[in-house]
Amino acid sequence: MADQKIYQASTTAPVNIAVVKYWGKRDPKLNLPTNSSISVTLSQADLRTHTTAACSASFPTSDSLLLNSSPQDVTGARTQACFRELRSLRAALEASDSSLPKLSTLPLKIVSENNFPTAAGLASSAAGFAALVRAIANLYELTSSPTELSRIARQGSGSACRSLFGGYVAWQMGTKDDGSDSLAVEVAPASHWPTMRALILVASAKQKKVSSTSGMQTTVATSELFQRRAEVVVPKHMEEMEKAIKEKDFEAFGKVTMMESNSFHSTCSDTFPPIRYMNDVSWAAVGVVEDINRKAGKIVAAYTFDAGPNAVIYYEEANTDIVAGVVKGALGSVSGWESRDIKAQASDVLDVADVEVLNKGITRVILTQVGEGPIRTEESLI
Amino acid sequence: MADQKIYQASTTAPVNIAVVKYWGKRDPKLNLPTNSSISVTLSQADLRTHTTAACSASFPTSDSLLLNSSPQDVTGARTQACFRELRSLRAALEASDSSLPKLSTLPLKIVSENNFPTAAGLASSAAGFAALVRAIANLYELTSSPTELSRIARQGSGSACRSLFGGYVAWQMGTKDDGSDSLAVEVAPASHWPTMRALILVASAKQKKVSSTSGMQTTVATSELFQRRAEVVVPKHMEEMEKAIKEKDFEAFGKVTMMESNSFHSTCSDTFPPIRYMNDVSWAAVGVVEDINRKAGKIVAAYTFDAGPNAVIYYEEANTDIVAGVVKGALGSVSGWESRDIKAQASDVLDVADVEVLNKGITRVILTQVGEGPIRTEESLI
Repeated sequence: MADQKIYQASTTAPVNIAVVKYWGKRDPKLNLPTNSSISVTLSQADLRTHTTAACSASFPTSDSLLLNSSPQDVTGARTQACFRELRSLRAALEASDSSLPKLSTLPLKIVSENNFPTAAGLASSAAGFAALVRAIANLYELTSSPTELSRIARQGSGSACRSLFGGYVAWQMGTKDDGSDSLAVEVAPASHWPTMRALILVASAKQKKVSSTSGMQTTVATSELFQRRAEVVVPKHMEEMEKAIKEKDFEAFGKVTMMESNSFHSTCSDTFPPIRYMNDVSWAAVGVVEDINRKAGKIVAAYTFDAGPNAVIYYEEANTDIVAGVVKGALGSVSGWESRDIKAQASDVLDVADVEVLNKGITRVILTQVGEGPIRTEESLI
Repeated sequence: MADQKIYQASTTAPVNIAVVKYWGKRDPKLNLPTNSSISVTLSQADLRTHTTAACSASFPTSDSLLLNSSPQDVTGARTQACFRELRSLRAALEASDSSLPKLSTLPLKIVSENNFPTAAGLASSAAGFAALVRAIANLYELTSSPTELSRIARQGSGSACRSLFGGYVAWQMGTKDDGSDSLAVEVAPASHWPTMRALILVASAKQKKVSSTSGMQTTVATSELFQRRAEVVVPKHMEEMEKAIKEKDFEAFGKVTMMESNSFHSTCSDTFPPIRYMNDVSWAAVGVVEDINRKAGKIVAAYTFDAGPNAVIYYEEANTDIVAGVVKGALGSVSGWESRDIKAQASDVLDVADVEVLNKGITRVILTQVGEGPIRTEESLI
């Protein structure tokens, strides 16, 4: 009679917010990008996916995935690629040591929960696929490094590869057709520059949804400026950003972060038909950051926007008052401030029209900071 | 005793709306552009500047300019350049024919009136400088061709050089340092393709004003995508647009018009700090045009945006119902429709959210069409 035991392992994995943006695939099937990217991993105390991976002969024969209590389709090519690659690594272990249970042959049951709203446009697929890959790797007792696992997570969701590390993470685009050198590496651990803070302004407006996968494809096919970004602009930004992080130079970090976000959204609006993620609320957030920096006389805050209207504002802990404090002074009635002890400051430095737009368009703020990579946990969701 | 006679001449001049955009100066003093451009001249029945130029020994000794009854500063380098160049051409005539009165030595009095709100962001400086140059050229009885005068008008306001012609007009960027080959030429007269219509949606929102002169300078200095636009994208669009106009191919005309507008605004948002002219209202107009074209199964309407939130929508007369009629069906309560007999059509093809944004954000529409160049008039404003 077959072994009916339930094997399981759990992990949490973080969200990451890119400061050099991933946009454009050179191979859609393998999620190989047209350019390298860099992100900051955010603290799992504030934003994380918690995932338990289990396998057992007692399970129904098909693999399953439950996200926030809703069954998910696992037959898609991306999830299948992750399962297949991880099973293959487990099968190699089993082949080299016959005492190991044959987990690679058992159905998988994955249960996942986010501690933040999935639909808020907070890069949930990155945390989700990083947690899925890390949890199964734990279950299978794989000895693969985070960089080795990043090759697999990338096939689930491109930016997921960066969520396998904490701190400051680069996804090197690689050049090989099989994607074996398209991998995430650590630029610096969180401990190198632990004072990096992030204030996320979550926008209420529903944007017409353009999925990032189809959006990227259209940009690569139609934007007449995109090639310049991929070939010239991003390589320059990658170099500048790695240097800024290594030297903990916030002014350089902030300038590249803002120029990168602008460059990415510019190639979106240069797409035909144009793709637009930033709305009047997003641009009011840009205005607020510009006003804060003007008042400080230097770059102390840096905005960045992903494929949606939410603003992520990076700043250093020492400037909490003049960045988060000033924003709280203007947006104090919005929920989310209670998670940290931020003292509201006078916000008369901010443009009143921007503040009005933000008060109408922002539903909540999230206060967080640079954080660690996936963390193994004994807390099971099964 | 000096001749006390008042010499005068009057003209009207049109607005033009570019379909290949001018953005970026290679020489700010001479208004030499980084790329060529093409525009459609709009009918003076709807939008025009009316200007009378007069000179007399009886006038106060300094030149003067009255615009819509307000005295304007004429000491700026641009206005001075126009006065100087025109006087120099007149002086040459006087030198060759001693019977001519010495108008070049007399103070100028210019009186100008727009038949549309100056501040509505409707390229009033183009019509203004074209009218000023044309009126003085009439006063001085210069035999210079519109192309020759375009060299002078360009120094007043870059895009003014295109308002010296009717129909479809190219501004060839030229290569010479002295700007002598940076001139406007006719691509096709209005009579070649007289069915071109324009629906202008005038937006109420006050944008933070970034003057186009300083904006252009910042774009050239900081946008990492701009050079690609000037060197590669615009030359391609110029070729495609000239062909589309010559062949009266609206689908090609419309596609290049929209991609050009997007490309221009993308280099604005890629500027650091970013420049933004299109707001949520502008983007709702983009959505409406996309919906109209989707319904038609081809490009029958084309949006373009200048340095402000107003939308200009080009379409052909035969498609009045499915373009202007559908927009009227959604925006019928806005003023301006009374100037033409447009039948409101069902607008259920349009996104309801876009229609809501437009109804809140559009103050008036202007219905117009391709039109003639400057027209001499005996109607004096003095």
